[in-house]
Amino acid sequence: MSFTTTAVITTFGGKLFKLTHASSTTTTPMALNLFLPPSALASPTPARHPLLIYLSGLTCTPDNCSEKGFLHRRAAALNLAVLYPDTSPRGLNYPGEADHWDFGLSAGFYVDATQAPWKGGYKMESYLTQELPETLFGDAEFGKYLDRERVSIAGHSMGGHGALTLYMRHPELYKSVSAFAPISNPTRCPWGKKAFGGYLGPDEEEWKRHDATELVKGWKGGDLKALVDVGTGDKFYKEGQLLPENLEKAAEEAGVEGLVVRYHADYDHSYYFISTFGEDHVDHAAKHLGLL
Amino acid sequence: MSFTTTAVITTFGGKLFKLTHASSTTTTPMALNLFLPPSALASPTPARHPLLIYLSGLTCTPDNCSEKGFLHRRAAALNLAVLYPDTSPRGLNYPGEADHWDFGLSAGFYVDATQAPWKGGYKMESYLTQELPETLFGDAEFGKYLDRERVSIAGHSMGGHGALTLYMRHPELYKSVSAFAPISNPTRCPWGKKAFGGYLGPDEEEWKRHDATELVKGWKGGDLKALVDVGTGDKFYKEGQLLPENLEKAAEEAGVEGLVVRYHADYDHSYYFISTFGEDHVDHAAKHLGLL
Repeated sequence: MSFTTTAVITTFGGKLFKLTHASSTTTTPMALNLFLPPSALASPTPARHPLLIYLSGLTCTPDNCSEKGFLHRRAAALNLAVLYPDTSPRGLNYPGEADHWDFGLSAGFYVDATQAPWKGGYKMESYLTQELPETLFGDAEFGKYLDRERVSIAGHSMGGHGALTLYMRHPELYKSVSAFAPISNPTRCPWGKKAFGGYLGPDEEEWKRHDATELVKGWKGGDLKALVDVGTGDKFYKEGQLLPENLEKAAEEAGVEGLVVRYHADYDHSYYFISTFGEDHVDHAAKHLGLL
Repeated sequence: MSFTTTAVITTFGGKLFKLTHASSTTTTPMALNLFLPPSALASPTPARHPLLIYLSGLTCTPDNCSEKGFLHRRAAALNLAVLYPDTSPRGLNYPGEADHWDFGLSAGFYVDATQAPWKGGYKMESYLTQELPETLFGDAEFGKYLDRERVSIAGHSMGGHGALTLYMRHPELYKSVSAFAPISNPTRCPWGKKAFGGYLGPDEEEWKRHDATELVKGWKGGDLKALVDVGTGDKFYKEGQLLPENLEKAAEEAGVEGLVVRYHADYDHSYYFISTFGEDHVDHAAKHLGLL
């Protein structure tokens, strides 16, 4: 077995597995949660299920959305597995790692750092697109339940940035993408400038390779199959950290179709917002994964 | 206005109001959350909505179930308001008040204490059955949305004990009751003996007046209209803190009908359990409140 199981929790007829494994990419133990729907566990012959990967936002662990996102009810009904990776390596103890809530611990921004000391272990892009899927789909205990050919990705805030950028940088890995309140144009917002400057250094051309608004300009994959939800009462939206309009405009100017951005009056940045629209995101993935 | 609004959060089309008010019963400020469904706020003429009161368990505040219970999706669809009171007074600073997670702060057990120092402010039964409803239903801002003649009560663990006992002690106030993993026979379990000894003193006859298993023996109200869910993987169930079988047996021996106790294989004591069956409890209340 590749994973150590720290808890197994029954919910909505399925099981949520809290797992850890030793990552050679981040050089640390990495935590993750995996929800298997009832259909995966009920059959005497394991059937391969499609998977939705959910990337969390700043300050979060795999537990926040597992507890508060309300994705499992609909995922259970549609026979969809859900994976919650962590938001950064933990335990590297780099100087200053825990000094900022928006940089370092819980704030890996889903890129491979190129700057010292972060380049040692803050390699979340390689971890998520290479090591974690290889480990999970090849795992003796869990791999047999999962279909590596049917994977979609979603995320919230920093995780929405991660979902959109990993999707456009690695379109061969995912069937669709969705995001709640994503950081849509990080090269133009304070959070993104701080994170990219710290992890990627001063070259802003390198930053653009990890910016959804920049990436969509070069998208050649046809229908984007992207759903984005934003609350108009979201403090960070109002402060200009999210900039979804820039993503919309770039897609429109580039002639990219299939980006649906919805603005919901008064909703905030919290899980009260995510839980309200979570089932729409499960349905979006399910549609592109052949479940609906 | 009787309440100070500390936050208004949009969720499932409705609004969750985080409120505080000065309680003369507890002699402290008391926090509560109130969810109003979309139908309450959409109409130009406020319509009176039925209300489900949800009592939380040990260690909880009004926020835990508001965030993790997933009652709002179904409540929004059925036009049901939901009220989350707090689990004890806060700020009295009695000696030892914060020394135990199962006694004192967040552990009021929904009784009126008779023992010093607790009798000064730990009067959760009077607060919940007298002051809070009078204040809420009479409030200029919120009272107009609520129907004081259509109220049901539910709760989890210590709050399940609270729901069952307040319902049977004050049947004129509620139309139905439900509970997740309730402390069903507190005079026979460690949590209950500790709490009742501390709050009510050594007279075990007084304890019995706050024990659901004892109260059901004297129930003369006809159909109990009670739903109870318990997970068989619940650590506290397995340790004998909940004892739902004693409640079932007492009801059966007393010829009381209308108690449905369901045992769910492997489910634990957490919100992963509550959220799975939360909609059943909303439906149970809705049925007895004339919404289904």
